[in-house]
Parts: sequence; C-alpha cells; structure tokens
Amino acid sequence: MNAKNIETLKKENMNLAEKIYIFDTTLRDGEQTPGVALTVDEKIQIAQKLNNLGVDKIEVGFPASSPGEMESAKRIKNRELDSRLVGLARSLTGDIDAVIDADLDYIHTFIGTSPLHRDYKLKKSKEDIIHSSVVAIDYAKDHGLTVEFSAEDATRTERDFLFEIFNEVVDAGADFLDIPDTVGVLTPIVTRELITDIKNNFKTPISVHFHNDFGLATANTLTAIECGANQAHVTINGLGERTGNCSLEELVMALKSAYNIDLGLDTTRLYSLSNLVGRLTGVKMPVNKPIVGDNAFAHESGIHVHGILNNASTYEPMSPEMVGHSRKIVLGKHTGANAVKAKLKEHHIDLNEKQFDKVFKNIKSLGDNGKCVTDDDLIAIAITELASARETPIVIKGLSISMGANVSPTATVKLEIDGVEKETASTGVGPVDAALNAIRELIQDTMDIELEEYNLEAITGGTDALAEVFVISSDSDGNKSTGRSTNQDIVMASILAVLDSINKLLLINRSIL
Amino acid sequence: MNAKNIETLKKENMNLAEKIYIFDTTLRDGEQTPGVALTVDEKIQIAQKLNNLGVDKIEVGFPASSPGEMESAKRIKNRELDSRLVGLARSLTGDIDAVIDADLDYIHTFIGTSPLHRDYKLKKSKEDIIHSSVVAIDYAKDHGLTVEFSAEDATRTERDFLFEIFNEVVDAGADFLDIPDTVGVLTPIVTRELITDIKNNFKTPISVHFHNDFGLATANTLTAIECGANQAHVTINGLGERTGNCSLEELVMALKSAYNIDLGLDTTRLYSLSNLVGRLTGVKMPVNKPIVGDNAFAHESGIHVHGILNNASTYEPMSPEMVGHSRKIVLGKHTGANAVKAKLKEHHIDLNEKQFDKVFKNIKSLGDNGKCVTDDDLIAIAITELASARETPIVIKGLSISMGANVSPTATVKLEIDGVEKETASTGVGPVDAALNAIRELIQDTMDIELEEYNLEAITGGTDALAEVFVISSDSDGNKSTGRSTNQDIVMASILAVLDSINKLLLINRSIL
Repeated sequence: MNAKNIETLKKENMNLAEKIYIFDTTLRDGEQTPGVALTVDEKIQIAQKLNNLGVDKIEVGFPASSPGEMESAKRIKNRELDSRLVGLARSLTGDIDAVIDADLDYIHTFIGTSPLHRDYKLKKSKEDIIHSSVVAIDYAKDHGLTVEFSAEDATRTERDFLFEIFNEVVDAGADFLDIPDTVGVLTPIVTRELITDIKNNFKTPISVHFHNDFGLATANTLTAIECGANQAHVTINGLGERTGNCSLEELVMALKSAYNIDLGLDTTRLYSLSNLVGRLTGVKMPVNKPIVGDNAFAHESGIHVHGILNNASTYEPMSPEMVGHSRKIVLGKHTGANAVKAKLKEHHIDLNEKQFDKVFKNIKSLGDNGKCVTDDDLIAIAITELASARETPIVIKGLSISMGANVSPTATVKLEIDGVEKETASTGVGPVDAALNAIRELIQDTMDIELEEYNLEAITGGTDALAEVFVISSDSDGNKSTGRSTNQDIVMASILAVLDSINKLLLINRSIL
Repeated sequence: MNAKNIETLKKENMNLAEKIYIFDTTLRDGEQTPGVALTVDEKIQIAQKLNNLGVDKIEVGFPASSPGEMESAKRIKNRELDSRLVGLARSLTGDIDAVIDADLDYIHTFIGTSPLHRDYKLKKSKEDIIHSSVVAIDYAKDHGLTVEFSAEDATRTERDFLFEIFNEVVDAGADFLDIPDTVGVLTPIVTRELITDIKNNFKTPISVHFHNDFGLATANTLTAIECGANQAHVTINGLGERTGNCSLEELVMALKSAYNIDLGLDTTRLYSLSNLVGRLTGVKMPVNKPIVGDNAFAHESGIHVHGILNNASTYEPMSPEMVGHSRKIVLGKHTGANAVKAKLKEHHIDLNEKQFDKVFKNIKSLGDNGKCVTDDDLIAIAITELASARETPIVIKGLSISMGANVSPTATVKLEIDGVEKETASTGVGPVDAALNAIRELIQDTMDIELEEYNLEAITGGTDALAEVFVISSDSDGNKSTGRSTNQDIVMASILAVLDSINKLLLINRSIL
C-alpha cells in the first residue's frame, strides 16, 4: 500500500465531520467496570489530567446514583476546567434535577430502545419510551441544559423505531444523538451502513458509544468517524462495563498516525495518563496493550533489533515520544549477538570475544529454559564472567529475628564483608524492615546504599508457597542493580534479594568503573 | 440494525473463501513477545490444547534460532497432533534445513519487502530480494515442503513490487501468500481495498498476519476474511511482538457470533486456554480483555443487573458458556437494591427491611470510598448487622516470633477464645506459617479450619510499605469466609487476616445456620 492509494481511498470513503469531539467517559462508564470504584479525590485527579490532555468533554458521573457521585461532580465543576462537563441521567426528572444540583449544564440522558430492553428491562411499550424521553428532554431544555440523548442498545433496535424516537427527541430539542452499541455487536461494515443512514436522515450532530465485546470498538468508532460521526465516546485504557469501551489512546493515535487527523490533543500525555488510571482503578494494562502497554515500543527478537538500531521505523508505526512512552530493547532467547553487544556497550561493559561468547550462550540458554533476561540480568551475567575468580563480597553468616507485643520487631544480622565478620541489631516496622536496617548499618562503611524499589510478587497458595522478591538498590554514584530471591519464607526472600543487589553493586564498583 | 439489514449487507460486501484456515502462531510470534520465553514442556502443553481447540495449523517455532526451538519442534511433532505443524525460516537454505531437520513438512518463509526493510534492515536491492526468495522456495519445494511465503511489511511495500515478488514466488511454487501488516498500520477500509486487489490478481490462497499497534488487528483480519482471505494468523491473548497480533479468541468469536460463521473450533475451550497461556507466559490479560477477561460476563451497575436477571441477552452479546466462561454479578457503589437482595437470597441470608437498609447504605458508602465490595464482603457486612450485639469470638492477646540460623522460625501465640485465654508455640517454614500453625492448634477444639487460599498482594515501595493480605478459610461443613488485613508488617497482616476470616466463620456457624 503506498501513500497515493490511501489518499484516493480516503476521498472515496470519507465524509468527515468538520469538528470531531472527544467525549471521555472514564469517570462514568469507565468507573462502571465491575470491581472498580474511585474516590472523589482520585476522580478530580483524573479529570484534571483529561483536561490537560485536551478532551472536549468529560462525563463526570451519574449524580443521582449516590452522594459520592454528586460530590465528585460538584468538586470537579469547581476546578473550572476547559473541558465541558457532562452528567448522566436516566430519562427521569429526578435524575435530571441531580445533574442541575451538581451545577452541570450538559446532560447525557438515556433510555433502552431495543426489543430486549423494552421487554425485559423496562417493560414499557414503544410509545411509553418515546413519551418518557420527550418529557425528560423538555424538562432539561426548560432548565437550559445542553442535551445528549442515547438510545441504549441502538444497534439492536429496529431501524424504523430508532429513527422514530430520534425524530421525536430532535423535535424536543436534543442537541446530540448518541448511538450506543451496548453489547458491542457492530462490525466495521455494519457500522458504515448504520452511520451513513443516520447521517443521511438527521442534521443533528451524532455521537457514538461503542462497546468492545469482540475487540472491535476502536475499529467501529474509526469507521463511524469516517462516515461523519461528530463525536466519539471513549475511555482511558478502554475501561467500562464488561470488556469496556473504545480506548481513547487507540482512537486518537489511529486518527493521528494512520489517518493523519490531528484532534489537537497533547498525545505526549497518553502514556502517563494510562498508567495513572491503571494505578487508581487497579486495572493494569497488559504488556501488549496498544499504544500504552509496556511492550508497545519494546523489541526482543535478534533480527528485529538489528533493523530497529538502523531505523526505528522498520518495526514501529509511530515514535514512542509521540505518546510519552520510550523504546526498550529486551534481551531473551530470540536475541541476536548485535543486540547483546549494543546493550553491553550502553552499560560500558567491555568483554573480549571469548568472554562475550560465553555470556551470549548463557543468555540463550536461560531463554530456552523459560527465563526472561532483563538488562540487569545481562549486566550480572557479564560481571560474573568478568569477575569469575572473585568471591561474593558480602555473605550472610547469621540472622535472628524476634517480634512480639509492645516492642518493635528486632533483627540481629551477622555479615561477612570482604572476609571480616560484623554483627548488629536493629528495629523496624516489620521483620523485613528491621533486618534491612541492620544490613544498611553494617555495610555503611563499605558503601552507601539506598533501596530504590522493593517488590514482593503476589503469592497465592498456602502460607508455605514460594515468595519471590525483587529489589533495586542504588549507590551514591547513581549506579543501580537488581536483586532477586525466591524462598518459602518471605523474610528470608527479602533479605537475600537485598544482599544479591548489594553484591552486584559492589562488583560494578570494583570491576568496571 | 435488524437481522435483514445485516443479511443484505453480508451479500453485498462478502466474498468468503470456501475454507478459512486458522493458523495459530502463539508458539512463534506469541513467544516473541518481549520478556516471554516458554520451556519445551510448556510449548508442548500449549500445542496439545491448540490441537484440542481445533486450529488448522500451529506454527511451532523457528528451529534455526536455538537448540531449544529445534527440540520443541521435534517433540511437538512426536505428539502426532491433528493440527498441521509449521516451522519458520528466513529465506536462507540453512534455516530451511533446520525445519527439515525438525521433521516438519510445512515452512513459513519470509523476507522484508518494504523500502524501509530493504534499505535499513536487509540492505538489498529489489532484485536481490526476489532472487533470495525464489532460491529459498525452490530449495524448499525440492525437499517436498508446503511453502507459505510472507512479504514482511507488505502493507508498506509498493503495490507493484509486492505483486512482482508474489508473481515470482507463485511461479516458484509457493502454496500460500501471506500478507503481514508488520507494524499494524492497516485500517478496515484500507484492508478491504488491499485484499480485494490481491484476490483479483492471484489464484494462490492468501493468508493475513496483522499486528495490533492501533488496536485494529481483529477488525482488519475480519475485513480480510470478508474479502476472501483464505487464512488468518492469530495468537492466544493477542500475544506477539510489541502490542501483538490478531487475538484468536476475538476473531473466532466475532466470526461465530457477529457473522454466524462457525469454523468448527471447540470454543468452550477458549477461556481455559487463554488462562493457561496467561499463566505460562506471565502476560496476564486485564479484566476488560474481550471474550476471556474476568469481566467479560461480569455485571455491576444496579440498572444493568436488573436487566441481566430478567434476560442475560440485554447486556451480553453471547453466552459465557460458549467460551467456557461464567457470569458474575459484582456488587459495588453502582449496585442497586435488587442485586443486593438477589445476592443475599443466594446465600440464604434473611434480613428484615431495617437491617437491609443499613447493609445497603453501608455498601454504597464503601463504594464511594473507593472500595470494591465482593460477595464475601456483603456476607460479612450482613452477618455483622445480624450479629451486631455480639463480641468478636477470637481476639489476639499476645504474639512472639523468633527466627534465626539453624532452627525453624517459631511463633508463640496467645488467643482469647470466647473469653478464655489459651497459648501455644509452633514452628513453620517461615514466620507466617509458624504463627498460623499455632493458631490452628489453639482453635482446633472450637472448630476445624482449613486455609483455602492465601493471597499477599504485590507490594512495591519501601520495605515499610503497606502489605495487604487476603485469605479464604473453610470449616468442616464447607462454609467459607474471607479475611483481609492491611499492615506495614507482612507477618502481622497475615495473622490478622486469618483471624478475621476465622471470626467470620464462627459467626456464620452461630448466627445463621
């Protein structure tokens, strides 16, 4: 496919709206992700970041549903953001009053229109549904609100009834017509027909709200935009009920990068915003999440890294900087010699050919055994090769921990440091903390270390299951090293992991610099 | 959209191949996910499950790349699966020899064809690239292999050069022409044009291998199939380089459910296969992953649950049983009274109206404070309400733990059980295990408990960060209860969580049954 073809295709198949609005519903539909609940402060933090990203509208919540929702709507309103704020309401005057009480002037009101929703959820006739919608919109317009109307389950609604209710709500003054694909059954070709038909029959701006049950929400939303949709409902990380909604980051970057349509958002904020939402909601994105996953710009295979080193575009459709991400070269079983050499050079580690061959073989064999080789593992392997005749500088010789009621946990640690035994006791908030305080005290004459990161892998099983601890330590020169240990005893695993990282730091200091 | 419209659309826009092959590359491209490496045994396990699922072809690896890849190819071959096995090879006779050595009779050979790949990776002219490809295919055909040829980065290759090399490799005997969208730049409309053009010009079956950089791999693959593609390359969980490949489960279920095209796979195996691959690769899918995510059939919001209870189709596009998954009703801040009542009934908990109102309010307020409310939390809250006047049966009165070199960690625990103090000491593999052994001993006269699950949440931060422990205990009647505790001290958090669950079990025994 060359550029000219794409241009021709665009002309033939595109009917873009003059202005395309991004309507973010992370705080409403995103928060309806089963198991997710955000505090008011967390919602404010996300709203501020969405505003900084530059989304046109933020749906702040469903004020009628709980006092917390009401409070967060009010407090976000107080921030005086540039993004327009929207409140959700069923087609009930009470719900609309709650949106007005929250001091919002834009309402997103919805009612189920499909046969399934009419018969099994609402138990209402078509006439009743039209009546409720029109009454609600009349009421909202009387109160000066901008009104967006959603025909819930629109994509499983009879086309003639969908058009009938749209006509009625347009007459009542609806400002946006929203088309929810409530259970994500659209495909691109069906989306094209549906949106084209609606655009041909209605002058009112239309909005799409597509769910992701088959993984098609982004593609369907892009297709709707191609056909003239004026607005897209999206969420950060594609959060939302069940499998979620169209992902903001995928839609915006596909438009920018594959369609050359820039909506004016500051896309360099996407990676950090995705991470913030992942942390606050507890829904972490996997490494292979498009745009924002840890691996989105990571490369392992030997062949690929060779290409990437010459020109990153060989294996990247956009630059990581565009979304605030960064490139990562990962070593593993597929890694070629070129990548390993580049990595060693990056870390100023100089091996002769024989040493290199041994390190390279070691990495390939770790890979074949199912181990992932990080940069730090490579450094450790290389250092071990360089310093193969040397002893481990620090060895644990004795450990005693006691804890009980009314006194702090106390650890007594005996270490052999470069052949000399030393011992001390220290307290801490828990046994691990106490032991690490003692170790820090013992080695302070040898080197000044800081524990940068302590990561205890989740354990599921019995209390005798294996615990895996991963730590990163740094010295005063800014050198960093990792340590890892696996043990049935959480405390021992922690102590051995820290000693592992300290020993590597000492070797870095002594062998290389 | 009603059914008739979709049928008409299908006729107008579909040009389906008579047979559509599913070519799974979880073990090859999936394993190239940065950071992922599978052992030979793990690969065999996955291959067996893919075979049971019913995929047509399994790409078992890249035999030339490492001894482990060669071994796993050979050992999978020995399983005599029904799925056809494929080996990857660059357009080099050495790579092809490795596939032959692995005793495979189907080769997937590739070479970069785009200007970027020619200039920056291969540093070869168009002529050289055609020459290498033809030589490789000649060699493979001479050895009796079935040959699938991939023009790497096909979607960024000049159309005339793509057709030129396809013509040459078809003349050399290629059996399948594969079109990799190497950096995931296709969109559905561009895919439609490209695949239609290729189908119009080539009689050889065509295959598509689409990457997911913008989240469009599934939609693009579906579009290719609509336009007559004969085969789709897919991976479980959409694994693969960077953001991965078209996800097998999304493609197969979209075809089955949205297109009514049944490829004959046993889709009830999808959920467990996705989980197996997640566990073995360490790449866990998020709750909102389509088809196989934990939330794919989970419902929280009050309004929705009401619909779901009447007819699940109101908020589900397919049944969870179709993919071996199950429906889940989750309580939270959005939960309505109907869902809570249904849950309580399910657990045979009978509250009067006043008690119910208090429990319901409690749940909503937990939600507003950012807490997720599980079934077990609801039971605990309800039980607390029922037993509000009662004392907690078991209270910890004293604890002392010691551990050191050469002896097992030892815990002395003093509990007050129904007002009577009891004390004992016990050892264990670690301090937590020791304390729990002591507790189990102390309460054995009161009740017989089993620790069903022990879950320590991952901790990142300092060693003084908060640890959260979640446990499930059961009694001899099969009653279960959860316990939770958060503490800076991992050991204390564990002990308090276990006591929490034991106290709930005692209350269940005494108050309800």
